[in-house]
Amino acid sequence: MPTTEEQATHLQQIIYDTIPLSRAMELKISHVDSNSIKITAPVATANANIHNTAFAGSIYSICALSAWALVHNRLMQENISTEVVLAQADIRYLLPINESINASCSIEEDDYQSFNNRLQNKGKASISVVVSAQEEDKIQATLDARVAVKIVS
Amino acid sequence: MPTTEEQATHLQQIIYDTIPLSRAMELKISHVDSNSIKITAPVATANANIHNTAFAGSIYSICALSAWALVHNRLMQENISTEVVLAQADIRYLLPINESINASCSIEEDDYQSFNNRLQNKGKASISVVVSAQEEDKIQATLDARVAVKIVS
Repeated sequence: MPTTEEQATHLQQIIYDTIPLSRAMELKISHVDSNSIKITAPVATANANIHNTAFAGSIYSICALSAWALVHNRLMQENISTEVVLAQADIRYLLPINESINASCSIEEDDYQSFNNRLQNKGKASISVVVSAQEEDKIQATLDARVAVKIVS
Repeated sequence: MPTTEEQATHLQQIIYDTIPLSRAMELKISHVDSNSIKITAPVATANANIHNTAFAGSIYSICALSAWALVHNRLMQENISTEVVLAQADIRYLLPINESINASCSIEEDDYQSFNNRLQNKGKASISVVVSAQEEDKIQATLDARVAVKIVS
């Protein structure tokens, strides 16, 4: 089992190699383990908007990638060959983000095991992931994502 | 009143100048008038994902910018000085997008007038905009956005 640092480096490389916009957004995976992930991106200058705060599309993308990457990474660590896609997501913007988009999310182990049982039984399953962007104790945005997974051979 | 071509050129320039990610996504405003807008972006290579279809974050960003830009453009044409932000949005991904993200949305004139009355009375108001990404008659994604506006002096 690779260390969490090795997982973060490997996962970030996969994202950089396959999603060009991730480089444009200058995203960094600051932490990932089996049940949680943290991804950050600077507001200035790549992710700024007309108000010089974070662009709504960047906030969404960093949060959505957190949900996707957490599920993708866990399945990869377990050597389950899958296709992982975002099926739907609802985002609420609560406060402007000035410095850095800091997205984090986690999955309860029971929820993951229940999802993985459905996946093994049916060949496909989806899991809900709640992501927040926050600075210290201030929640700036929340994203509810449904990540859909199918086993590929 | 500028022509719709002039409006599209001016609006695209504002977006390019203030939202760096819009250039990275290579978005183009193909049409805008008082009540509707169309924005496109190519999938390859800027907006691709690990499956070589459109990145979920790009689809969201192009759709969300369509809603934002339609409202921003209309208020600008009426010389109403405002701050326009996205308050929340729900997206559903229905089909993979292979070639080009084609987002479009429109506002019924009655809905706009009702929104504008609230805006003039209270100094702030929000309006719901439904955006779809589609190719011919196939709807690939839908986004329900709530755009919040306040008058600034």
